[in-house]
Amino acid sequence: MNIRPRTPLLDTVDTPHDLRRLDPSQLRQLADELRAEMIDTVGTTGGHLGSGLGVVELTVAIHYVFDTPTDKLIWDVGHQAYPHKIITGRRDRIRTLRQGGGLSGFTKRSESEYDPFGAAHSSTSISAGLGFAIANKLNGQPGKAIAVIGDGAMSAGMAYEAMNNAEAAGNRLVVILNDNDMSIAPPVGGLSGYLARLVTSGQFLGLRDLAKKFARKLPRPLHQAAKKTDEYARGMAMGGTLFEELGFYYVGPIDGHDLDQLIPVLENVRDAAEGPCLIHVVTQKGKGYAPAEAASDKYHGVQKFDVITGEQKKGPAGPPAYQNVFGETLAKLADADPKICAITAAMPSGTGVDKFAKAHPTRAFDVGIAEQHAVTFAAGLAAQGMRPFAAIYSTFLQRAYDQIVHDVAIQNLPVRFAIDRAGLVGADGATHAGSFDITYLASLPNMVVMAPSDEAELVHMTYTAALHDSGPIAFRYPRGSGVGVPLPDVLQQLEIGKGRVVRGDEKGGKVAILSLGTRLAEAQKAADALDAKGLPTTIADLRFVKPLDSALIRRLMLSHEVVVTIEEGSIGGLGAHVLTMASDEGLTDAGLKIRTMRLPDIFQDHDTPERQYEQAGLTAPHIVETVLSALRHNSAGVEEARA
Amino acid sequence: MNIRPRTPLLDTVDTPHDLRRLDPSQLRQLADELRAEMIDTVGTTGGHLGSGLGVVELTVAIHYVFDTPTDKLIWDVGHQAYPHKIITGRRDRIRTLRQGGGLSGFTKRSESEYDPFGAAHSSTSISAGLGFAIANKLNGQPGKAIAVIGDGAMSAGMAYEAMNNAEAAGNRLVVILNDNDMSIAPPVGGLSGYLARLVTSGQFLGLRDLAKKFARKLPRPLHQAAKKTDEYARGMAMGGTLFEELGFYYVGPIDGHDLDQLIPVLENVRDAAEGPCLIHVVTQKGKGYAPAEAASDKYHGVQKFDVITGEQKKGPAGPPAYQNVFGETLAKLADADPKICAITAAMPSGTGVDKFAKAHPTRAFDVGIAEQHAVTFAAGLAAQGMRPFAAIYSTFLQRAYDQIVHDVAIQNLPVRFAIDRAGLVGADGATHAGSFDITYLASLPNMVVMAPSDEAELVHMTYTAALHDSGPIAFRYPRGSGVGVPLPDVLQQLEIGKGRVVRGDEKGGKVAILSLGTRLAEAQKAADALDAKGLPTTIADLRFVKPLDSALIRRLMLSHEVVVTIEEGSIGGLGAHVLTMASDEGLTDAGLKIRTMRLPDIFQDHDTPERQYEQAGLTAPHIVETVLSALRHNSAGVEEARA
Repeated sequence: MNIRPRTPLLDTVDTPHDLRRLDPSQLRQLADELRAEMIDTVGTTGGHLGSGLGVVELTVAIHYVFDTPTDKLIWDVGHQAYPHKIITGRRDRIRTLRQGGGLSGFTKRSESEYDPFGAAHSSTSISAGLGFAIANKLNGQPGKAIAVIGDGAMSAGMAYEAMNNAEAAGNRLVVILNDNDMSIAPPVGGLSGYLARLVTSGQFLGLRDLAKKFARKLPRPLHQAAKKTDEYARGMAMGGTLFEELGFYYVGPIDGHDLDQLIPVLENVRDAAEGPCLIHVVTQKGKGYAPAEAASDKYHGVQKFDVITGEQKKGPAGPPAYQNVFGETLAKLADADPKICAITAAMPSGTGVDKFAKAHPTRAFDVGIAEQHAVTFAAGLAAQGMRPFAAIYSTFLQRAYDQIVHDVAIQNLPVRFAIDRAGLVGADGATHAGSFDITYLASLPNMVVMAPSDEAELVHMTYTAALHDSGPIAFRYPRGSGVGVPLPDVLQQLEIGKGRVVRGDEKGGKVAILSLGTRLAEAQKAADALDAKGLPTTIADLRFVKPLDSALIRRLMLSHEVVVTIEEGSIGGLGAHVLTMASDEGLTDAGLKIRTMRLPDIFQDHDTPERQYEQAGLTAPHIVETVLSALRHNSAGVEEARA
Repeated sequence: MNIRPRTPLLDTVDTPHDLRRLDPSQLRQLADELRAEMIDTVGTTGGHLGSGLGVVELTVAIHYVFDTPTDKLIWDVGHQAYPHKIITGRRDRIRTLRQGGGLSGFTKRSESEYDPFGAAHSSTSISAGLGFAIANKLNGQPGKAIAVIGDGAMSAGMAYEAMNNAEAAGNRLVVILNDNDMSIAPPVGGLSGYLARLVTSGQFLGLRDLAKKFARKLPRPLHQAAKKTDEYARGMAMGGTLFEELGFYYVGPIDGHDLDQLIPVLENVRDAAEGPCLIHVVTQKGKGYAPAEAASDKYHGVQKFDVITGEQKKGPAGPPAYQNVFGETLAKLADADPKICAITAAMPSGTGVDKFAKAHPTRAFDVGIAEQHAVTFAAGLAAQGMRPFAAIYSTFLQRAYDQIVHDVAIQNLPVRFAIDRAGLVGADGATHAGSFDITYLASLPNMVVMAPSDEAELVHMTYTAALHDSGPIAFRYPRGSGVGVPLPDVLQQLEIGKGRVVRGDEKGGKVAILSLGTRLAEAQKAADALDAKGLPTTIADLRFVKPLDSALIRRLMLSHEVVVTIEEGSIGGLGAHVLTMASDEGLTDAGLKIRTMRLPDIFQDHDTPERQYEQAGLTAPHIVETVLSALRHNSAGVEEARA
């Protein structure tokens, strides 16, 4: 247990209203206390640390200068908003972060009026801010929108789309570019290089330079509205920064840890801007906590840790994570196959592509937060004969849905989709759940969709995908550790569209469970219980949802009284495909008890994955109860109604 | 019938190999003949005219200078590729454009080796080009990638994501920005203004300026590879154009109709570029055909027309188009409701938002080709109390899928989705079909999904959506004209999740048809035929797929022997939801003949919508056959197997 830091000034600040009563000279102390409180909090809960540490001063300065919550402060992604939560009425719950029933690890509308727009996926803040700004403009209401967005998030197309439309907001929109030269991994691409040149080409703006940029003298005199300068207009003229060319007034770069710079700049932008502004703030991820500053990942996401030493609590050593099984398998396959490439969208370690990149640096591509480009780039590689693996989390692959349809599936190009974080993901909550990929992929012509039931199956599916040159193929697997089976020495090419019976007898039994993915372990437990009740249970690990193994499913339907499907996905996935096949073939005409078990029709809040699956009704006892309930179900009423 | 133009030089050019044998002095004549041939073609077939006319010289110049098909020429969107098709071996079929069995109106891999990457949705070309370039680099093969992209397409985020990653391609990537200051509608946003400033701020580059830009003298001397100049490096330095800041070598603007400029510039870029190049070419949409040049839409997409007069053949006057019914209804509603806004992504007339914009210009937003931004912008508007309608074609809404999930559905914000071009769309083919929206929307918690069965229903649904403040709501309707029912004087707020029985008796009958959307007319015809056969048929117009009217469906299932669902969408939609509900409730346990009629598991080629639905098996005779086949289906085999 860490000893809580002393925070006498912070203790007087419950909301930004309290903050705004302080003298500017007190803000440095407040920031220091806020930083200490945040370090202690994350030491207790685990979570995102480095990003929050980088914006402590920015958080204080924005709330000090702007009239939140009338002015709408939108944190892009929102994982850097822990300091913001502490000073917006949520300090009493801050040590429940990311726990079941506790505060979200991101901003969330239902938590606070100070969170006007929820986030977790990157690069949405400018679009949302524009919406608030324009609504206020149309309604003649006060209120600006302040979007705080990282340099990594700026690589996503939607940030650019929003910037391209910003002029309509006039001075109601303020974008703060939080440039820490890091997202989760170091950012990539032309923009990143450009920002680095902006920062290194000159000194930070000093107060004198800032004074020149604005219509009034600094620090903090009265506003002289009449004193419009030519410089403002000049800033908007052609030939300025990239941001100016898109219609922003650009200020920066400034030191994002220097409150003496931040406060007057924000005040000037608040009072004197005549159009949308972009303030380029340079911060240091992990700032003010030595272990974070020293770490290569800046303590982006951490386990609980000891505040003094920075040492993170390690969980017990367990089976390898799915992501690493994938990355290492692919790296090995690529040793013998020069056509294999791997693409990640800013998640090299999260996807295991880092393992591949280490072995095959020229064939690994981190395209930044740019899933749309990642997929169409992979399509281009495939069209020219390469074997690209696009390794993208299920939830982020949603960003590239049109590219999957239009550039990959319609053209039947052999792009391999390695889809991590499928199903429920735990502490990151609804925004990160991989709930929909089975549904949105299995409905596409030409697409093959697989899900391994354990890490050994993932090895075989990676191999199967590498060999599948006739069209697109996807395989989806969960966050976290495998189930502990030994990894195979011999790789197996799976027959496309064929499942396997892993228990019982496909020729006959009482109950058949059709499982896709890692619920198989629960299905086994359920079968133990059902067998014990005298209900012989057969389990098929279907492996494929598209194409479906209709021959196997037909056999099982004809030889069992109850058939249950189970998957870690929403309606429209495996269950729907099995039911559709059965009705197409008339297998239900004479009566068949089919039940589909799937994710419920709600967005589930963060919790442990185990409790989330409990809430979802997808555990072994739920399977047993579904079977028993189906067996109990009396169709007399139905038959009577139909007689 | 138009008289074919005389094209003696073009007649000698079947492929780019023939073209490259010509003397440069002949290229002007070739371009003129190519333009005449294209005008005559589109006069005969209808299709996209203005864009192709604008790139005639560019088409000739690119194929003359680059070694296609080894060099990969990728036309963004591809609707401007008719001249390209004429000189790449497809002239003999050019008058089959967009007809069933004929050439596609876009580029298509299966048509020609000169179409390395198919397109139709915008802004994919740079990503795909990068894929080709990198594949060649990895394999040590020759071949550059040339992406030709319009200024309108540059507003989409994925183009920016690709540019941000371009440096990795080195000089294997050439981007040609075809700046005609028009996409379908005039482009919008900061980038558009920026390009206009680039063009108007100076003269076009003359030959002398071009000579200065390159390492060799012009026109067309031998290549002097040794003569690298400082200017090349300087062009890459900071402070250049927006494109230079992203890592491109920028050349331009140049006159895209002047072959004496185009050829040497392309040759220089081909031979001397040391990194990715962006050539900024200014063209005129509709160039060289007076009626097109004079028209405000530059004859973007036309019916068959008389070449002499430019007069387009009008079809017979019919019922109003769905898009206009929507746009006019929304405009009327907004007269009384100041909260209603409309958002389009570069399709003001195609969506009917132009009608709204005329009445309420401050509340209409054309965000350019930027569907991701459009949806999250709408979410921001909704979060601040507005009633935004995002009017986007089904196929293009795929671009905003993650924003629908993450920014709208998870936050349960009342964004209204007016989804045009749902179902099969005819001549635009598979890339434009609205096949998947029911599946990808109805699987989302919080979402309401409707489909009107005719234009009167569309009026009611528009009104219902306007009043629905408790969460997101979507309604999807087809391309083209309504069925001819009178438009209602009194708007009706539909009860959410309630269908209606439009024929027969829900208390009893032989056959029940559950219809969603405009297949209702076919269901009626089928019911006529079934009734005539002594099979009393009940039809429900479900109106909603989410929430489903389970009470009505249950009653119909209990009182009918065969239940058929029909929808204009893929697997995973209405049929899947009905089957899931029925199995959840055990309604099939005792036997029930359910069949789901949906789009087939193929991407259907362009044809008339009628023939496409015929191919899809979704016409009245197909419904009748499905019912009869279900009635005939003998379950004895099933029962025997299960006995």
